[in-house]
Amino acid sequence: MRKFKNVPITAVKLHDKFLAPRVETCIKVTIPSALAKCRETGRIDAYKLDWKPGKGDCPHVYWDSDVAKVLEGVAYSLAQSPDAELEKYYDELVDLIVSAQQPDGYLNVHFTVADQDKRWKDLMLKHELYCAGHLMEAAVAGFEMLGKRKFLDAMCRFADYIDSLFGEGEGKRPGIPGHQEIELALIKLYRVTGNERYLKLSKYFIDFRGQDPDFFQKENGIGEPPVMKQVHLPVREQTKASGHAVRMMYMLCGMADVGEETGDESLLDACKTIYNNIVNRQMYITGGIGSNWWHENFTSDYDLPNGSNSYSESCASMALALFARRMAYITGEGAYVDTIERALFNTVLAGISLHGDDYFYSNYHEINDNYIPYHSGARVRQKWFFCSCCPTSYCRFLTQIPQFIWNEDNNGGVYLNIPVANTLDYGDKLIEVSGGYPESGNVKVTVKKGGAFALNIRISGFAKSVKFRLNGAEVSAPVQNGYALFERKWQTGDTVDYDMDMPFELMRSNSRLTENLGKVAITHGPVVYCCENTDNIADVRDLCIDSETEFVLKEVNGLGKCAMAVECDGFAAEDRGEALYDSAPRRLNRCKITAIPYGLWQNRGETNMAVWMVEK
Amino acid sequence: MRKFKNVPITAVKLHDKFLAPRVETCIKVTIPSALAKCRETGRIDAYKLDWKPGKGDCPHVYWDSDVAKVLEGVAYSLAQSPDAELEKYYDELVDLIVSAQQPDGYLNVHFTVADQDKRWKDLMLKHELYCAGHLMEAAVAGFEMLGKRKFLDAMCRFADYIDSLFGEGEGKRPGIPGHQEIELALIKLYRVTGNERYLKLSKYFIDFRGQDPDFFQKENGIGEPPVMKQVHLPVREQTKASGHAVRMMYMLCGMADVGEETGDESLLDACKTIYNNIVNRQMYITGGIGSNWWHENFTSDYDLPNGSNSYSESCASMALALFARRMAYITGEGAYVDTIERALFNTVLAGISLHGDDYFYSNYHEINDNYIPYHSGARVRQKWFFCSCCPTSYCRFLTQIPQFIWNEDNNGGVYLNIPVANTLDYGDKLIEVSGGYPESGNVKVTVKKGGAFALNIRISGFAKSVKFRLNGAEVSAPVQNGYALFERKWQTGDTVDYDMDMPFELMRSNSRLTENLGKVAITHGPVVYCCENTDNIADVRDLCIDSETEFVLKEVNGLGKCAMAVECDGFAAEDRGEALYDSAPRRLNRCKITAIPYGLWQNRGETNMAVWMVEK
Repeated sequence: MRKFKNVPITAVKLHDKFLAPRVETCIKVTIPSALAKCRETGRIDAYKLDWKPGKGDCPHVYWDSDVAKVLEGVAYSLAQSPDAELEKYYDELVDLIVSAQQPDGYLNVHFTVADQDKRWKDLMLKHELYCAGHLMEAAVAGFEMLGKRKFLDAMCRFADYIDSLFGEGEGKRPGIPGHQEIELALIKLYRVTGNERYLKLSKYFIDFRGQDPDFFQKENGIGEPPVMKQVHLPVREQTKASGHAVRMMYMLCGMADVGEETGDESLLDACKTIYNNIVNRQMYITGGIGSNWWHENFTSDYDLPNGSNSYSESCASMALALFARRMAYITGEGAYVDTIERALFNTVLAGISLHGDDYFYSNYHEINDNYIPYHSGARVRQKWFFCSCCPTSYCRFLTQIPQFIWNEDNNGGVYLNIPVANTLDYGDKLIEVSGGYPESGNVKVTVKKGGAFALNIRISGFAKSVKFRLNGAEVSAPVQNGYALFERKWQTGDTVDYDMDMPFELMRSNSRLTENLGKVAITHGPVVYCCENTDNIADVRDLCIDSETEFVLKEVNGLGKCAMAVECDGFAAEDRGEALYDSAPRRLNRCKITAIPYGLWQNRGETNMAVWMVEK
Repeated sequence: MRKFKNVPITAVKLHDKFLAPRVETCIKVTIPSALAKCRETGRIDAYKLDWKPGKGDCPHVYWDSDVAKVLEGVAYSLAQSPDAELEKYYDELVDLIVSAQQPDGYLNVHFTVADQDKRWKDLMLKHELYCAGHLMEAAVAGFEMLGKRKFLDAMCRFADYIDSLFGEGEGKRPGIPGHQEIELALIKLYRVTGNERYLKLSKYFIDFRGQDPDFFQKENGIGEPPVMKQVHLPVREQTKASGHAVRMMYMLCGMADVGEETGDESLLDACKTIYNNIVNRQMYITGGIGSNWWHENFTSDYDLPNGSNSYSESCASMALALFARRMAYITGEGAYVDTIERALFNTVLAGISLHGDDYFYSNYHEINDNYIPYHSGARVRQKWFFCSCCPTSYCRFLTQIPQFIWNEDNNGGVYLNIPVANTLDYGDKLIEVSGGYPESGNVKVTVKKGGAFALNIRISGFAKSVKFRLNGAEVSAPVQNGYALFERKWQTGDTVDYDMDMPFELMRSNSRLTENLGKVAITHGPVVYCCENTDNIADVRDLCIDSETEFVLKEVNGLGKCAMAVECDGFAAEDRGEALYDSAPRRLNRCKITAIPYGLWQNRGETNMAVWMVEK
């Protein structure tokens, strides 16, 4: 059923200004620093299983997931950028982790060194199945990237053990994860091992979810609305994104995977329905999702606050990209890539500093010096968190970016999804993409090694129109599912170059999204811009954008080589004063306003920022 | 130290269109229905102390406060509108309540029929001191309004018992209420009894608060930021409104009362500082406070969201009016009355239906059919709540309104605070106020019984200018503290009439309040208007107000005799469409827009509403 398949991660070399430096920084800074944090905080040594009360922090129920996610990232990193020392450390870590596995296959440091009698007793809150899933994903990455089996074999034993406990049939108990993740991980395990037990168990977790909305309440006695963990309805009957955003996304990934592997259209239909609800009603323009800081939740349609009472977790946008990627692969529809780009170029890049070791957990769309973010939010990026899911997600996500760029199909056709400058070097294909995407819609694809194959080029959903030239001569190409098809016997040196008409634009929200009424956001293709005080003559709250503005690219300092800013026309309001409410209209003076990509904000110190600006 | 004193509640008869019907409805509908709800839900029978597990709901720790607040309202009601049957029921209820008092003076149904070993064990959460305070307030009202001593004597015994437990000195323990209220109630008890123990105990609760920010945590082991219950700092060092809004307001009332009675300027200075923080940075234009639904909290300056993620509890605005009234009385400053009017005419009236028995707990400033209010919020008024503080607050608040209208000073001078149409009939004073305030700034004061006294007339802070005429001839009057003074030997029939220039205006927020950037609210003096779909040709989200609009009064159906609406010029946007984000500007068509007072919204069925509208 799947239309696309991956090209190897090593097949794609990025050399654009926007993504390549972030992937490189992830390998050089993010992963080493996350490993260091895991050591410092006891997450690594925890696998020695020698924790005793009084000996530092008790290993937390989700520590395994943090280590697993970094290790998954290390595998992608080593595949792209071999490093003998890091690989040695990786092997030692795997040895240590596997040494902590119990004879029955169980692995979770918390319940091995503490609360030993509470294994599997509170599926809603205790994260054992969630951690298991991340450990399995890490093991699959180690096998696929590096050909290492030890971790994979151990995680198969763990999966076998879990399968012996949960599901239907004699001696098994009903169960569902309180934090979805294992569903998609079991499919990965199934794909590399061919063991149908894993597919069946994943399908069981998907199918059983929501059959009894009170399942968790009955188990742990804690009253929580069933919708929070997406158990309010059987998954096929769910039509809206609801509850905890990352859980929702991982559930959708699992549903898509099981739907694909079993040919179950009802699961894929549910995925599409919920996907449409997200992108049409519950997604920030930056690809952020889960707008409520309280339980990191989806709320209701069009409820997308910008400020201190909002959320938009970094992990959630990465998970949205992973879900949209699955949908693109399964359906072959280029439109899903628009959503990947929204999330990737904006919220995902905003959640980590250019330096690579400072993170936002929640991504505000407006921040001001009078704001005190609610709860776990922060006004500046942090080095680590008590619950450090976001930093560890970056380790495994940014290193996978090369695999988002190209796909192939089963007939040897290749698909260019995100036309940043890069080289595809794989089998008998050698293709170079150049141009300034996403800063510019001009892209040139050069076939560096001739041969007969179909080259499919995605036409961005953000483009107004597109013109293709084959070896310099205008051509038209058949378009299917958002991809223009060029199928021919290529000669070395053949080029397809194209202009996607992707102007700077002022975007308006649907009026149901009332917080943005009367406001505009500047976009350029998938890239959303924001204004920081740093570049402007007045506080961003006192600036208005001129509806008729032109846009002029400009350079700004301090954003590395990856950033162009844009200047537009607007107004600055005089005399803010101290009155909270006042009838006097404020005098507006014409001024220039500078905006930078949202994915690069707060890289020059703490300053006020806004994505949505008043339109005049 | 106090500048003003109350006139008797029976001295003022309202006959205006805006407030009088609401007070009358409170007496005729709200109080009887609240009594019925108290009976239905077991709150009354609970005083029989015969609850056993299995016999319905266990009396909740705050049930006493609900009954007490209704009883307080009954006392005000009976004073103004005698009713033999209701008075008989009142006496029976008092008998029943007093019969439940324990030999040591203790009274709280929950801890008498259940958890008997947990009395005073969790001051933070268990509401015993809070309920005690409301019972004392009710008892004082019964004594002052109806001259009945039984309840008062019982509550003195309760206060004596509490005083024997808490405070400094041998055999006493430290303590502070987790929900402030008893501080102000003890002062009321002190004022009617002259017993200094009550003043001293109140002062102890005020002084001890915040001396140890971890006091509650040490007591009950529950981690909660100390700021939530205002124990983060000693009260005199607090400079901002923070934590739970109603608790904050009752604390301020207690601080003002103790400051006044002890001449402690440091307490009054802290009250003024926090008051200024509220009205200049944390108050909705409608006099709503406590913008966060989570724990019904204040958050940070300028954080005043309008929609489903906001709050603005009805009780909190009533409590703000009670606090501002204390400050007005103590300082003699008319400016505090502006805040009373903001709260009273807008949020307080909005929180209860015209029919008188449907209530908002939280008061949104915008509501739409796609909104799902967070947590305990509701999109339509409710008949009662599990925690039913708001309905019971209305019983005691609306019936006190006549006492907000006039004050006197110690020299027999009278002060007209809120110049709604009314008659003051008290001692040797008989004064009639006529005119359409607040719909109009034209007011006529007629002295119906001659005599020498000072008549002080507050000049609204919302008036641009004011012109006075004495018996038809223009005069100027000395103005002090916001009151114009007319001191003379009045002849029967003398009049002072005046025009306060109080135009309809478009109000803008300070730009730090980013949610209202580019938006305006329509006000007329203290009255804030809102738009409902009911009166308009398009959804309120698709309407913009013309910056240059004129305002024309108009009548609308369905709002009883108390409502005038206003029509202004604006635009309706075409083609909302379904896209969440779109670059096409929407075509605007000129139209008329109708707005009604916010205090009257949602009295004609569920409909979309907005206070803040985009300005064009």
